[in-house]
Amino acid sequence: MRHLSLLATACLACLASPLAAQNAPDAAQVHAGILTLDTHLDSPANLDQPGWKITDRHDVLHDTTQVDLPRMIEGGLDGGFWVIYTDQGPNDARGYAAALAHALKRLHQIHDFVAANPQSFALATKASDAAKIAAAGQRIVYVSMENSYPLGTDITNLEAFYQLGLRMAGPVHNGTNQLADSTNGEAVHGGLSDLGRAWVQEANRLGIIIDASHAADSSFDQMLALSAAPIILSHSGPKALHDHPRNLDDARLKALAARGGVIQVNSLFLSPDRPRPTVDALREQMETAASLPPSERAALMKQWAEANAAEPRSGTDFDRYMQAVFYCIDLLGVDHVGIGADWDGGGGVIGLNQISQIPRITQALLARGLSPADVEKIWSGNVLRVMAEVERVAALR
Amino acid sequence: MRHLSLLATACLACLASPLAAQNAPDAAQVHAGILTLDTHLDSPANLDQPGWKITDRHDVLHDTTQVDLPRMIEGGLDGGFWVIYTDQGPNDARGYAAALAHALKRLHQIHDFVAANPQSFALATKASDAAKIAAAGQRIVYVSMENSYPLGTDITNLEAFYQLGLRMAGPVHNGTNQLADSTNGEAVHGGLSDLGRAWVQEANRLGIIIDASHAADSSFDQMLALSAAPIILSHSGPKALHDHPRNLDDARLKALAARGGVIQVNSLFLSPDRPRPTVDALREQMETAASLPPSERAALMKQWAEANAAEPRSGTDFDRYMQAVFYCIDLLGVDHVGIGADWDGGGGVIGLNQISQIPRITQALLARGLSPADVEKIWSGNVLRVMAEVERVAALR
Repeated sequence: MRHLSLLATACLACLASPLAAQNAPDAAQVHAGILTLDTHLDSPANLDQPGWKITDRHDVLHDTTQVDLPRMIEGGLDGGFWVIYTDQGPNDARGYAAALAHALKRLHQIHDFVAANPQSFALATKASDAAKIAAAGQRIVYVSMENSYPLGTDITNLEAFYQLGLRMAGPVHNGTNQLADSTNGEAVHGGLSDLGRAWVQEANRLGIIIDASHAADSSFDQMLALSAAPIILSHSGPKALHDHPRNLDDARLKALAARGGVIQVNSLFLSPDRPRPTVDALREQMETAASLPPSERAALMKQWAEANAAEPRSGTDFDRYMQAVFYCIDLLGVDHVGIGADWDGGGGVIGLNQISQIPRITQALLARGLSPADVEKIWSGNVLRVMAEVERVAALR
Repeated sequence: MRHLSLLATACLACLASPLAAQNAPDAAQVHAGILTLDTHLDSPANLDQPGWKITDRHDVLHDTTQVDLPRMIEGGLDGGFWVIYTDQGPNDARGYAAALAHALKRLHQIHDFVAANPQSFALATKASDAAKIAAAGQRIVYVSMENSYPLGTDITNLEAFYQLGLRMAGPVHNGTNQLADSTNGEAVHGGLSDLGRAWVQEANRLGIIIDASHAADSSFDQMLALSAAPIILSHSGPKALHDHPRNLDDARLKALAARGGVIQVNSLFLSPDRPRPTVDALREQMETAASLPPSERAALMKQWAEANAAEPRSGTDFDRYMQAVFYCIDLLGVDHVGIGADWDGGGGVIGLNQISQIPRITQALLARGLSPADVEKIWSGNVLRVMAEVERVAALR
């Protein structure tokens, strides 16, 4: 909450502009004044691209990437949870080792871009860090883990990651693993495995936010029941809007909220997928991109970006995304909803396709009649409340 | 072997200089022409010191550090095995997690100094890399691990470290752990634990050189018997010269050599320790060094360095060190001896106290009558032969 206390005492009517809805406070000023976090930034995966730097300006229409420092500044995103994402592979010792090496490399890359740009970024490990970092003019880097597959069968590894900065983790991605059944995998454990239950308890003990996005409904139910602290859906949607395994039904969302948790609304899976013939045709070629000479690679990336823009994954547009956000707010109240649009992980919709465009979300929330204080809850207050509660529970252990 | 083929065909007599022993080839030219590796560089620990950079020139008399790029260049050290050292802590889950986080941080720091100085350093992962890297004018960075305690009870973690570059590892340091009894620890397992035996087999399977320095004699015997590939003592000495637990008796050294292994001669434990009242008095103060303002820290480091120089750990001098090297050569032959002086890990002797002074070793070896080709075996050929054999054995698995 950088300047909100100032704003809150100002005459909000004075801030109205022709661009904002009638009587609504000026969206740009509110957006600039509140602390904004997205809980699922898959952008660290882009650090693998030759020559790609988080401090350079890119465009989704040139290379499909959606987040970098210049666009965060333009869009007024103060930071978020930066993801160590690991593809699900074989659930065996070789698979675990390769996954661990991959996850450690990605963690290293996150640490490196922060260390290389100390004026622009800072690692955050406590809920109270966010406001301090934003006040210092830096962007907030919490570290999260999408798929705990890299931990293998040794829960001790979770503590090592915690010590290296990890503060949010989900047990699975697409594909059931040693810890839990996935929304997109076989029902092997009927929810959590024994190891998965130990993982929940260890996350509680350490003070890591449990992220149930990608967990099967059975896994979600068991994590919610077992966790001593509120849990989060870092990037999920309401099933009421679109019946997809990655979305949750109203009863589960209400149960999440009743335990103090938050759904951070995803921009994916809100409408049926559409055919993407040009994108699909280019996919194989894209796998060779990293090995191409720079000029050829740039041309291919642009072709890929244009195909993705011409053939969006679904018909979801900005209004549909906001419909999902509003649906969750109406169902759960403003204390249990946040933003996790899956940037650089497949997210983005027509009209909201890179991080520079997120002031539109604030504008739409204000136009809906939310107060600036409630808008800030959506943008950061709720997830930070969950984090503080996770810290409190850990301190008792 | 950068220029040795050239040298070997030249008239060695022509290279003689007044500085070298009569009829011996010119030591400086030989030293510059051969590939030189030290198998136990503890220098990565210095990367924790505020402001300390591997590319800056330091002096052992100012800050006790012994290795950096300028001194490597001056001393003609092409590279070596850079150590991830971890203090032995409690053998429980909390201890393993803390150790793993520490080891990963250190690995990260090694990767970082290489990545930050690509013209000066290169990571090496194969025996054949060393010559190529030296030919490109870079210093060779193999990664090794002193104490495998950070692996915890999950041997899978060894493979993750392998994938991140680890090519040599010892099971223990000072203190018995989950894997093996230590020279300086209790005899808990009677050598290797079950986990330690699995660790040996996994190191063989992956292609990691097994380093028996710090392992109890019982652990050494069992590793030697169990390993399908030759093993190494990265920094150990002959017990015949000084009866210390960290040194090995002749029978064990012969057994090591008979299995194709190498002892890389340490500069420590070759004479009885001496009292160090000033050093001991300063030790507690040194623990606060990192938190001092830069100027106070520099003054304390200098005081510390001067005390260390004034009160050497033992009476070992350069001649004594070479006596140990010669003893091993006489006992085992030139194919089973190398150099691992424990730089930045407590090593260094009177007259050989920083890496810039290592041409003295080459000079002494030549004066002893070794051919340049044999000198290169001592400096790198033997360890690279072991490494190539470790790779061959792994490829069969």
